Amino acid sequence: MIPALAPNLRTAFDRLRTITFGADQPLLLSSGQRLSPLTIAYETYGELNADRSNAVLVCHALTGDQFLAAPNPLTGRPAWWPRIVGPGKPIDTNRFFVICSNVLGGCMGTTGPASAAPDGQPYGLRFPGVTVADMVRAQAMLIEALGIDTLFCVIGGSLGGMQALQWAAAYPKRVFACAPIATAARHSAQNIAFYEVGRQAIMADPDWRAGDYLQAGVRPSKGLAVARMAAHITYLSEQALRRKFDRALQDRTAVSFGFDADFQVESYLRHQGTSFVDRFDANSYLYITRAIDYFDLAADFGGGLAQAFKDAATRFCVFGFSSDWHYPAAGNKEIARALIAAGAEASYVEIDTDKGHDAFLVEEPHFESALTGFIDAAAAARGLSLAAGG
Amino acid sequence: MIPALAPNLRTAFDRLRTITFGADQPLLLSSGQRLSPLTIAYETYGELNADRSNAVLVCHALTGDQFLAAPNPLTGRPAWWPRIVGPGKPIDTNRFFVICSNVLGGCMGTTGPASAAPDGQPYGLRFPGVTVADMVRAQAMLIEALGIDTLFCVIGGSLGGMQALQWAAAYPKRVFACAPIATAARHSAQNIAFYEVGRQAIMADPDWRAGDYLQAGVRPSKGLAVARMAAHITYLSEQALRRKFDRALQDRTAVSFGFDADFQVESYLRHQGTSFVDRFDANSYLYITRAIDYFDLAADFGGGLAQAFKDAATRFCVFGFSSDWHYPAAGNKEIARALIAAGAEASYVEIDTDKGHDAFLVEEPHFESALTGFIDAAAAARGLSLAAGG
Repeated sequence: MIPALAPNLRTAFDRLRTITFGADQPLLLSSGQRLSPLTIAYETYGELNADRSNAVLVCHALTGDQFLAAPNPLTGRPAWWPRIVGPGKPIDTNRFFVICSNVLGGCMGTTGPASAAPDGQPYGLRFPGVTVADMVRAQAMLIEALGIDTLFCVIGGSLGGMQALQWAAAYPKRVFACAPIATAARHSAQNIAFYEVGRQAIMADPDWRAGDYLQAGVRPSKGLAVARMAAHITYLSEQALRRKFDRALQDRTAVSFGFDADFQVESYLRHQGTSFVDRFDANSYLYITRAIDYFDLAADFGGGLAQAFKDAATRFCVFGFSSDWHYPAAGNKEIARALIAAGAEASYVEIDTDKGHDAFLVEEPHFESALTGFIDAAAAARGLSLAAGG
Repeated sequence: MIPALAPNLRTAFDRLRTITFGADQPLLLSSGQRLSPLTIAYETYGELNADRSNAVLVCHALTGDQFLAAPNPLTGRPAWWPRIVGPGKPIDTNRFFVICSNVLGGCMGTTGPASAAPDGQPYGLRFPGVTVADMVRAQAMLIEALGIDTLFCVIGGSLGGMQALQWAAAYPKRVFACAPIATAARHSAQNIAFYEVGRQAIMADPDWRAGDYLQAGVRPSKGLAVARMAAHITYLSEQALRRKFDRALQDRTAVSFGFDADFQVESYLRHQGTSFVDRFDANSYLYITRAIDYFDLAADFGGGLAQAFKDAATRFCVFGFSSDWHYPAAGNKEIARALIAAGAEASYVEIDTDKGHDAFLVEEPHFESALTGFIDAAAAARGLSLAAGG
């Protein structure tokens, strides 16, 4: 594993918790290729109960990682879902065994384009193209290795929500409850377009070197920063940007008539770009965005979304945010409708907020209370007590 | 003038119609700097009538040019507003004298960052920062040089609409009618953010060379293409992208599991990027987007939008498009409200369409008929006959 992160992070990679599947357990990919060896980096929180019925799998989003409830020891970044996962939180780690694994193709310990290929060199573009279904198959290998047959709940936002839907569609008997949040069952043309802008920005950077930048000791930081900036705009609503920044100037009383960050929103966006490049691998960004582009659950299951869930014994709660224009609330509502059409027990909760797509990551009390209600009701149906590890 | 276009276009620059203001007529800029000499490239269509009362000034958008009703002889691109301007069209060139000038800071003959500075070298980043007010002041010099005191109508979409508003605010007695289309009286934080992504993409391209690429014989084509791609997404609605492309594949029956343009929307967007770089100068893109960022008409006139129009004798018709998320219809409606609050004769027309911001550039029959109605009523009020040149 050759991590593609900033040099100061590289030596810390052996501190990650991982499991490796060898040549006897290749991962069969949607493309028909086989990936081996496969390392999955993951974190767990809480205790697995005696009958192994209290496991919650949290799936992370495009640029997330497995450190959802504690700081990432490599990057020093705080936990990304501390309001949702932890002692006494909606997903209570006194009660549930919570698992989160770095996604296939990622760059926080799970095998991805920055990992060493069998020849010892980084894969780069030799890494096979992956899909959301592949990400879920890899997670399923981890879950089996942990000795868990049925997950109590699979939950995630954005790409994490796609993985949650894919879990329920691919393994209908192994998911008791499922909470897809701010997600889509098919990636839209507009979203493909935004990701293509990001990929072109990365590939336009001469330091990308056709994907072989690690061997050259460089990274396409400028291109990756631009990609991150473009994507970041889609994660926030127009209203939130107006509320937070409007046209306020940054550290000045008058415009510069130049190309400095005159406006606070520019400064904020530049910071989003530059702080991202130290913790994320550009090729991982290419591969994961491509997997998201390819996500079309209905097409994968013969054309109808209801068809994807025809065997579902899972209970669902789908969450949408009113100001999310990356994965609009209407699309999340459609998912719930398809689930109901498939005969599944499903509800849809729309949270009225101006915080846009990223609302699931920030303080949003109505989301937290609705999620708590869904988790608690499902736990009661599953016969899980309120006691620790119950 | 050293054009920053593709080499095959450069020799044709002397075929442009221009007027140059010398050292005795410097343009005083919003920044306090003076620009001299100033060349303005422009086109006219139709004939000015005897009492010089039938002149229509059309202001172009960010990447437009003066060739609105006939093909651009340099680029070979077709006229950009043929449905609106021409014989028998809503702005009838049998009746009106139509003027369109390349915007200050542009790259189609008007002085901009690719022009030769007094030292003979291209300005590059030595070009002074400009504003929409500066663009309008430059146009006013052209209009005066053409011997026109009062314009019958100033009209434009997007940045063109900002210029139209600025004309009416700055020269309330010299604009009889004004039609701002799909525009904004203040550029939003979200739009500043999108333009900042584009600027960062350009400036990240090593061929940008801190703005001095012309001297080096190169152009930051990759960065400019990424900038164009990011902006282009904002010109189309999500619905239009779905209707035109959805998830259709480009020249293939299955995805490639790679980074080719698998999807039609990717291919379309790449074409938008690559076809743009031959006809547009990267530094012009920086300067014009910055001018748009700075546009805040209310702030320029003491805080209230109505204040900007308190002396307006102009009659207005403001047009918004329902699916425009770049300059949302609501913002256009607000402009009309401010005009009415200022005591101006103003109406607002909202066109129900899925074509997004670019609806004003494509076939939109209700827009065309509403615009015709406004123009004809204003012409009658102005005492312009229906006869040619009347």
